[in-house]
Amino acid sequence: MTGFVSLVGAGPGDPDLLTLKAARRLAEADLVLYDGLVSTEALKLAAKAHCFFVGKRAGRHGIQQEEIHALMIKEARRGRRVVRLKCGDPFVLGRGGEEALALAEARIPFEVVPGVSAAVAAPALAGIPVTHRGATSGFLVVSGHAESAYRPALASLAPNAATVVILMGLSARAPISGLLLERGWARETPAAILLGASTSSAWTWTGFLVDLGAAEIPNEVRDLPGCLCVGEVVSLAGRLASLISQESAWRRSGTR
Amino acid sequence: MTGFVSLVGAGPGDPDLLTLKAARRLAEADLVLYDGLVSTEALKLAAKAHCFFVGKRAGRHGIQQEEIHALMIKEARRGRRVVRLKCGDPFVLGRGGEEALALAEARIPFEVVPGVSAAVAAPALAGIPVTHRGATSGFLVVSGHAESAYRPALASLAPNAATVVILMGLSARAPISGLLLERGWARETPAAILLGASTSSAWTWTGFLVDLGAAEIPNEVRDLPGCLCVGEVVSLAGRLASLISQESAWRRSGTR
Repeated sequence: MTGFVSLVGAGPGDPDLLTLKAARRLAEADLVLYDGLVSTEALKLAAKAHCFFVGKRAGRHGIQQEEIHALMIKEARRGRRVVRLKCGDPFVLGRGGEEALALAEARIPFEVVPGVSAAVAAPALAGIPVTHRGATSGFLVVSGHAESAYRPALASLAPNAATVVILMGLSARAPISGLLLERGWARETPAAILLGASTSSAWTWTGFLVDLGAAEIPNEVRDLPGCLCVGEVVSLAGRLASLISQESAWRRSGTR
Repeated sequence: MTGFVSLVGAGPGDPDLLTLKAARRLAEADLVLYDGLVSTEALKLAAKAHCFFVGKRAGRHGIQQEEIHALMIKEARRGRRVVRLKCGDPFVLGRGGEEALALAEARIPFEVVPGVSAAVAAPALAGIPVTHRGATSGFLVVSGHAESAYRPALASLAPNAATVVILMGLSARAPISGLLLERGWARETPAAILLGASTSSAWTWTGFLVDLGAAEIPNEVRDLPGCLCVGEVVSLAGRLASLISQESAWRRSGTR
């Protein structure tokens, strides 16, 4: 009997933001192949599985993408239930499409279990709705990993036509803010840097687009996963963030 | 003691795509204010709550947005745990920002529980990764509700600079495809209409951008929630969709 592979989104970090389906797939799994940034609490849900780290570690490459494909295919052919656990959503900048294609080409039955993407959740948890009536009714998500990844979209989208969210954009924040200013975005457009969203180490900077490039990042948060967010909606953070953080009040008050 | 309001994303439809946190908030709730398109299975999780429909019904307006605000605030002040259950993610085109602002202005402690947005999940479940190495490393999400909502972004974004997802765009598919063609997108750009994603009534059309405007929608699916998706990544649907649908094989084989 052939096994089955689930490409599962783990959400932005907080294991509470796994979906019910993700949690059940983990509980049923024989093997879990997980990325960096996946929480240990999420892995604990995979009670009977062997959990194997296949992510990249800072400074070294680790396992190759093709090896991940080969491993999923081999284990599925042995009848195993494999969960490929990926940060955020499996199809948002996570090479999930390549993994799905590899499985399809090998005729391995698989599924995609969408997850909560940090592209929307990181702003939300900082009090920034990516869309907001009267401000914007759209948002653009791009990778800040390489200039070729973000330039075509950021150099063309009209200023304020959509909220802009750049994932993995921390180290490119200077060229990215420069590109947006050159495109005509106002220097005073509200902007944010959101690191470690949904975890206890969450860190937020808010200011103006013109200051985004030079914003100082403390050493202790520099390696957290993060995104940049640019647009009028960022100005709502100041009005919303303080009350949003009151979630702890509910926690203290009883059942969590 | 003041209550607490949770603005909770219910995901794209399948109750299995609720987050663990959403499920727990529902179980703890005294009152649930829910929109249309929220599944009855999701409401069953709110075992001890009074569940109150505050969505729009086809053809009539129903409760006003300000009444929803007033109700949340009144019930929280009575010490109730209120869950405002919204389709998809509460901050993606759902007026969640307005609800959060109303709560903040009334000094009601609240939280945002991000959910899986159909903007990413609907394409994913049809075998379309919104980003894909070699094709695109970004995606734009806009509302198709009104021309003023989508025109600024769609008239400026360079062709193929990002995958384009239009939520609530079914009835505007002709002007939207016309706008993209005018902007220079190729007539043969792959395009999809995705209705009822993640539910048993899911329906998908794929074809070329030039045919999107005139694509025929069967009567029985016309009222399902849906989105349009345009970009090279849509071509992957043909290679992925058939195997993705094999999820049922796992279901039949044992534990679900």
